Amino acid sequence: MPVQPLKITDLTLRDGHQSLLATRMRTDDILGIIGDMDQVGFHSMEVWGGATFDVPIRFLNEDPWDRLREMKKRATRTPLQMLLRGQNLVGYRNYADDVVTAFVGHAADCGVDIFRVFDAVNDERNFETALKAIKSKGKHAQLAISYSLTERVMGGPVYNLEYYVEKAKTFEDMGADSFCIKDMAGIIAPNDAYTLVKALKKAIKIPIQFHSHYTSGMASMSMLKAVEAGADIVDTCLAPWALRTSHPAVEPMVVSLTGTPRDTGLDLHQLLKIGDYFETISPKYRDFMDTTKMAVIDTAVLEHQVPGGMISNLVSQLREAGALNRIDEVYDEIPRVRREMGFPPLVTPTSQIVGIQAVQNVLFGRYKVISAQVKDYFYGLYGRPPMPVEPEIQKLALKGYERGEVPITVRPADVLKPELEAAKEATKGIARDIGDVLTYALYPQVGLRFLKWKYGLENPPADTKPRTLEDVKREDDLVTKAKSGKLVEKSAEKVNPVPTATLIAPVGGLRHFNVHLDGKVYCVGVEPTASVAPAATYIAPPSVATPAAQLDSKPLSPAPVEIKPVAAKAIEQAKPAEAPRPVEAPIAKTEAKLPPAGSEPCGEDVLAPMPGVILRYEVKVGDKVKSGDTVVVLEAMKMAIDLPSTTDGTVAAIKFGVGDRVSRDDVLAIIAP
Amino acid sequence: MPVQPLKITDLTLRDGHQSLLATRMRTDDILGIIGDMDQVGFHSMEVWGGATFDVPIRFLNEDPWDRLREMKKRATRTPLQMLLRGQNLVGYRNYADDVVTAFVGHAADCGVDIFRVFDAVNDERNFETALKAIKSKGKHAQLAISYSLTERVMGGPVYNLEYYVEKAKTFEDMGADSFCIKDMAGIIAPNDAYTLVKALKKAIKIPIQFHSHYTSGMASMSMLKAVEAGADIVDTCLAPWALRTSHPAVEPMVVSLTGTPRDTGLDLHQLLKIGDYFETISPKYRDFMDTTKMAVIDTAVLEHQVPGGMISNLVSQLREAGALNRIDEVYDEIPRVRREMGFPPLVTPTSQIVGIQAVQNVLFGRYKVISAQVKDYFYGLYGRPPMPVEPEIQKLALKGYERGEVPITVRPADVLKPELEAAKEATKGIARDIGDVLTYALYPQVGLRFLKWKYGLENPPADTKPRTLEDVKREDDLVTKAKSGKLVEKSAEKVNPVPTATLIAPVGGLRHFNVHLDGKVYCVGVEPTASVAPAATYIAPPSVATPAAQLDSKPLSPAPVEIKPVAAKAIEQAKPAEAPRPVEAPIAKTEAKLPPAGSEPCGEDVLAPMPGVILRYEVKVGDKVKSGDTVVVLEAMKMAIDLPSTTDGTVAAIKFGVGDRVSRDDVLAIIAP
Repeated sequence: MPVQPLKITDLTLRDGHQSLLATRMRTDDILGIIGDMDQVGFHSMEVWGGATFDVPIRFLNEDPWDRLREMKKRATRTPLQMLLRGQNLVGYRNYADDVVTAFVGHAADCGVDIFRVFDAVNDERNFETALKAIKSKGKHAQLAISYSLTERVMGGPVYNLEYYVEKAKTFEDMGADSFCIKDMAGIIAPNDAYTLVKALKKAIKIPIQFHSHYTSGMASMSMLKAVEAGADIVDTCLAPWALRTSHPAVEPMVVSLTGTPRDTGLDLHQLLKIGDYFETISPKYRDFMDTTKMAVIDTAVLEHQVPGGMISNLVSQLREAGALNRIDEVYDEIPRVRREMGFPPLVTPTSQIVGIQAVQNVLFGRYKVISAQVKDYFYGLYGRPPMPVEPEIQKLALKGYERGEVPITVRPADVLKPELEAAKEATKGIARDIGDVLTYALYPQVGLRFLKWKYGLENPPADTKPRTLEDVKREDDLVTKAKSGKLVEKSAEKVNPVPTATLIAPVGGLRHFNVHLDGKVYCVGVEPTASVAPAATYIAPPSVATPAAQLDSKPLSPAPVEIKPVAAKAIEQAKPAEAPRPVEAPIAKTEAKLPPAGSEPCGEDVLAPMPGVILRYEVKVGDKVKSGDTVVVLEAMKMAIDLPSTTDGTVAAIKFGVGDRVSRDDVLAIIAP
Repeated sequence: MPVQPLKITDLTLRDGHQSLLATRMRTDDILGIIGDMDQVGFHSMEVWGGATFDVPIRFLNEDPWDRLREMKKRATRTPLQMLLRGQNLVGYRNYADDVVTAFVGHAADCGVDIFRVFDAVNDERNFETALKAIKSKGKHAQLAISYSLTERVMGGPVYNLEYYVEKAKTFEDMGADSFCIKDMAGIIAPNDAYTLVKALKKAIKIPIQFHSHYTSGMASMSMLKAVEAGADIVDTCLAPWALRTSHPAVEPMVVSLTGTPRDTGLDLHQLLKIGDYFETISPKYRDFMDTTKMAVIDTAVLEHQVPGGMISNLVSQLREAGALNRIDEVYDEIPRVRREMGFPPLVTPTSQIVGIQAVQNVLFGRYKVISAQVKDYFYGLYGRPPMPVEPEIQKLALKGYERGEVPITVRPADVLKPELEAAKEATKGIARDIGDVLTYALYPQVGLRFLKWKYGLENPPADTKPRTLEDVKREDDLVTKAKSGKLVEKSAEKVNPVPTATLIAPVGGLRHFNVHLDGKVYCVGVEPTASVAPAATYIAPPSVATPAAQLDSKPLSPAPVEIKPVAAKAIEQAKPAEAPRPVEAPIAKTEAKLPPAGSEPCGEDVLAPMPGVILRYEVKVGDKVKSGDTVVVLEAMKMAIDLPSTTDGTVAAIKFGVGDRVSRDDVLAIIAP
């Protein structure tokens, strides 16, 4: 067999920014360069799929279908490629077959030429429907194996050479047009890459593509060895968005192979010019970079083998939960959860499912909180994991599970009823084409909200607006000034950091407030005394006066001020983070802890353990609940999280509506004893 | 020959921070971890040499000899290694043999076990004295070849396989204990690394060490291929200070070779823990990082082949010269200068010599300004470059050269007179041991200044003080506040950005000032008029008043203010960078351009083209000079730069003293016509 030039798939426009910049690249910036990239001579460009569906509708107010069509108009030479999560499509659960077929069909119509399909547990039954749909559209179906390990190198009882070779043969037999080794954690060692590709070249005839994240720092070495072993195609990014948790850079790979039989033939100078474009736009997205570490690789992954994207999620979710210091406990918990779940590869969505369960086990105790997805997983809705799951944990997870306590053994989608008609029904009057319907079918909450933005039925929030280079420049100037000592704190904030004035009635009389503290509601009577009135308060000049300053100066106002009871949420938001005792100091007298007095019932709070969106309440006011019963389901960390009552009692208050965004420690419901 | 485990030299404490953090790591931080690193089982630790001598005495107020002794106390297991620039030692010119012998001897006495010796032009005659001194101390002498290219890969008329093999044989014959391939630019391609090491293993018997910077992104691939070809030892850094312009990280290399015949046997967990230490201290040094680019590798180096350290120097010097936008011109100029200089490898000091000449050619015209080192180079003081130099440029450079216009062909140090006795004489009463004398011998200006700091004869400037993590925290808090809009500009600065008040006589009378503008001195008479008095001036509250604000408020002072003529330097320093017309607006009347009136002569300025230290004046007041004659020698970019008069005339003023630090555009001298 003659040696072929190495082919290159560019990932910059999908996995590049998904890995480094939380998938935030905007359509405009993509359209500004894709035409040039189309001229390079890449084998393909991966530009869609993965998180590039979810993020645009959730955060960017951009339509992913429009983006795909616009890209296709400008990239006329190079095949466009998407990453499809098998039966999960671009979401985080298995969808019904009719949704899968419609989605693949529409993606093909809008411009996808090559579908890279993978499954989180490598269950080939999850490819069946997508594969059929791809073939029926006459497109290229690449089936990918999720590379995983249980030992430090390939081998052991689960992920050994035979496992991969057998899977590859199965995929080829199913009709795959090509095969991909998808090393999402960047844990394939150079020698293993060589051994594996060498064995695969003997076992199968279809082209072999090699995909490895740079996370651990081994990827370029492993890629070089894969190429030596005969890999036909490799995945790279342009240097600005390469390395770190992304991929090997294309430029050094091109030069490394120059003059060898695998010479890519790509033009270095052309690549450098395109790279300059990405340098230019990068500052817009810099806030999404993980800059917590000096190291540009994550050597810990060599020990714990958690993929980069999952790491960013864990870090950002732990940070939001104010528990970033517990990351090492989470790293320790992940392998335990994974073993109990039958050693699934750690890739979306299993990486999220394992990761969030590990986070919850660390934050709230082992399996005290179990997400809906974990229940689905143990029921069998994600497919058959490489090894059997832990029966006791399975039993615990399926206790009272809505679909039944006995897990299934059939292809997961076989138990799913068609979903498309219901989606059409639900979006009647809003959706204008099948793309809109699919957006809703995949993401009912977020998708519907997006469709409302898209068709002007709701105003998108300000934070969906793009950041400009001018914004960046302004921020840079501000930071430069701050560092050189040219800025001072707004004067009002220097004097009295606790904006407590609104808690204090300026003239006489006792008032009652509900004070939410440590998950309890205290009914507190407040009466002003001379000793609690603020002492001298700084009067800020009008030109620098801020709302906070005006608030502080109110007690000095001669006119009576009308004070209304303040909800706990408002208090939380008003207090500066560093204020040590936000509500104690100014309160003169604590009348009684209970019984209730004031506008709200008292009892045990159900708190949001992390920021998220209310998916649904499982109870209504007046319902009796037992400790452990699910009160509310929160969508957070891309997962549905059941939040239980911590006490027996009666639902005394429901504090939010479905679809509301909530912050950490918001009171979602109150259970009265 | 049985296959041996791969040995690892750790570079973190020398090349790691030299590459990434401008060599700013402090002795305290080194001593906090070197004991742990000593337990890892590294073949050696490179901890000294290179810039770790210059930077501590120049910027840190730390004694490099003390650092070496303290490190040796704590690292009792692992051989300590230093990088010695051959006859250049740790400086930027060839020193006399007596200095070389004394330096090597003292370094051995203070703790260096392995001396890696290289020469910038690969002239083996420059190793002779150092090699003899190392051997006489019974230490390990590793001779290194500076890897360089003229083509994109190894080959061509200069840097081909034969060149390297012949050099290696020569080094071995001279008595080298080991041989090092030193790829300072990170330009060795994986295949070339394999071919070269394979050939060397056949040609020589001494161990072969492989050193490649990550700059271009090829280093880990090339290192892996070098290992496959039989390299005995490789150079790595701990991950936090690896990659970018530094080196491959040790952790992925260790895991990549786990279970193979070249398994390093190092403990990953131990390495991760040590890496955590470097993460912890890194923020102190973050301001020295080059963060101008999103990419963590420099793909342009694949085209222009300039080493990382040289790039940082060029960038920082161009930035200081306010000409960062001309970097591409400099990249284009470098190969031209290099060809004219006989294709020297680009490594310290030749990289600086070529680099600064390229910068000067771009900024001031080709060879309009020629540094003293370039003259020395063309004279032959750096040795014999791989190819003949361009005779015409040589002639230009040697015109009027102090040592003679005919270049030498002997070993450079043969023409150097002993220097040590003079150094002892010059430091009499200050130096307390040979280390102090050597510090002076290597860096007369900077060394003497350091010795004065060391022995309390002068106060070190505040910026030699270490930065603490508390400082970092404070800055972080400030930036966070600035970004969230909690800071405002100091009010005084908003009102009147040009602190011109001192230029204006508050009560009556005409005064004369010398105004330096565009390299000319204008003799200007200044007379206050009503129209130039500042209008309403903001009175800052005392608590936020700044010197600038107080300055601004002076014109409103009722008492007469005494005004003295202001030197150009003071004016320059007082004006904010953004002030568009610093001296024009407030001046009522320009009396006459010439002849002189006031305290200073008028004429052509000799300006500092970049920040630096005055090395010496070649003229004194009253001397006649011709256009092109050197007036003053400035030490900048680690080089001595001759600054010529731009006119025929008489030296009318000398504005600084030897050893003074000057800023860009400072007037160093004035030449009257």
